Amino acid sequence: MDTIRVMEIKKSVFDDNDQRAAMLRNELQEQGVFLLNLMSSPGSGKTTCLAKTVESLHGSMGIGVMEADIDSDVDARTIGEVGAKVIQLHTGGMCHLDASMTRQGVEGLGTKDLDLIVLENIGNLICPADFDTGASKNAMILSVPEGDDKPLKYPGMFSMADVLIISKMDTLGVFDFDLDAVKERVRALNPNISIFPLSAKTGEGMEAWTQWLQKEVAEWKKGATHA
Amino acid sequence: MDTIRVMEIKKSVFDDNDQRAAMLRNELQEQGVFLLNLMSSPGSGKTTCLAKTVESLHGSMGIGVMEADIDSDVDARTIGEVGAKVIQLHTGGMCHLDASMTRQGVEGLGTKDLDLIVLENIGNLICPADFDTGASKNAMILSVPEGDDKPLKYPGMFSMADVLIISKMDTLGVFDFDLDAVKERVRALNPNISIFPLSAKTGEGMEAWTQWLQKEVAEWKKGATHA
Repeated sequence: MDTIRVMEIKKSVFDDNDQRAAMLRNELQEQGVFLLNLMSSPGSGKTTCLAKTVESLHGSMGIGVMEADIDSDVDARTIGEVGAKVIQLHTGGMCHLDASMTRQGVEGLGTKDLDLIVLENIGNLICPADFDTGASKNAMILSVPEGDDKPLKYPGMFSMADVLIISKMDTLGVFDFDLDAVKERVRALNPNISIFPLSAKTGEGMEAWTQWLQKEVAEWKKGATHA
Repeated sequence: MDTIRVMEIKKSVFDDNDQRAAMLRNELQEQGVFLLNLMSSPGSGKTTCLAKTVESLHGSMGIGVMEADIDSDVDARTIGEVGAKVIQLHTGGMCHLDASMTRQGVEGLGTKDLDLIVLENIGNLICPADFDTGASKNAMILSVPEGDDKPLKYPGMFSMADVLIISKMDTLGVFDFDLDAVKERVRALNPNISIFPLSAKTGEGMEAWTQWLQKEVAEWKKGATHA
């Protein structure tokens, strides 16, 4: 990984984000590509969790990653080293990605030979929840050090996510974090959410999460017109 | 602390945020009130750090706290218990506060007998950096678990802050966090920033931070017309 491709993406001037998201989702399904939108606070361990996920799955499927950041290419370098096709997206200060920005990223990355594309969204627990990116599923991470009160304070993202990863579980002894309380608070907002507590560092819980993802990708591809 | 006053604040329909911020700052200086805008990611320990700061300073000055959140009043309850006058601000989903929203909060809280008001801004490392709230000084917190790469990825807030608190220093042994690298990365963006590594849990480093804040409040009041 010597050169990371960096792409400046721009906000759409159009207002029909939901329609654009649905179009992108349909096109990706026709191509048999599952798009996972991965959201969280800054520093929740998105990149580390994603690197371990790619390591675990890249023998069984083609994986692409779009690393969205305000600046830098540190995450893209990390992900590039573990075997995913990667592109770095710079949002010019924007605090989230919309469907049009996601499409620019997908076109920049290219979908050839890919089964799964992960959009590592901007580290932000608020704004990304308001914008459909065109993803097949929406995942979010809450890390143990962030605290168990986050579902109460940021209900939007916890309500719209299909899956919640609770990361840095190896630090549970260091922080005052009530896992059962978190599950209860999240399920009060979103009864159907799948929840995976894990530690990318120790590997604890990683298998249940990657199995869920593998199953979702396989089901998505079954629905593909030209897969 | 039985009843927490909760106030719904709304975004201004006007575009002149900088002018409104300057007006609020001038009015507060005339009243001898220092306004600290405290920003960070969700879960960096803003409320815990603030509670310890209030405990340490509330014998020497009148302190008010405005807790801004998307939802809930958990932080306001915590702060109310340690001796500050407190109001909970709900932003109706907005990811930051502007000067007009801050003014609504200040008027709701009231400035009588207060020397210091702390605005605990929405947990967000991006959007709040773009809006002058009218604060006397801007502070931000980066917690050790978030990682030492954050100044590279979110340069905006690290560039505009007057002071950086590095929190949860008691967890330094648990995470791969290079304190010297952080200081170097932050000072490359913002050479004049004051940096205070501390742990609200153990008390390590708290005194240097509260002394800085005490000095800033005293200097601000010296500049006050009617202080």
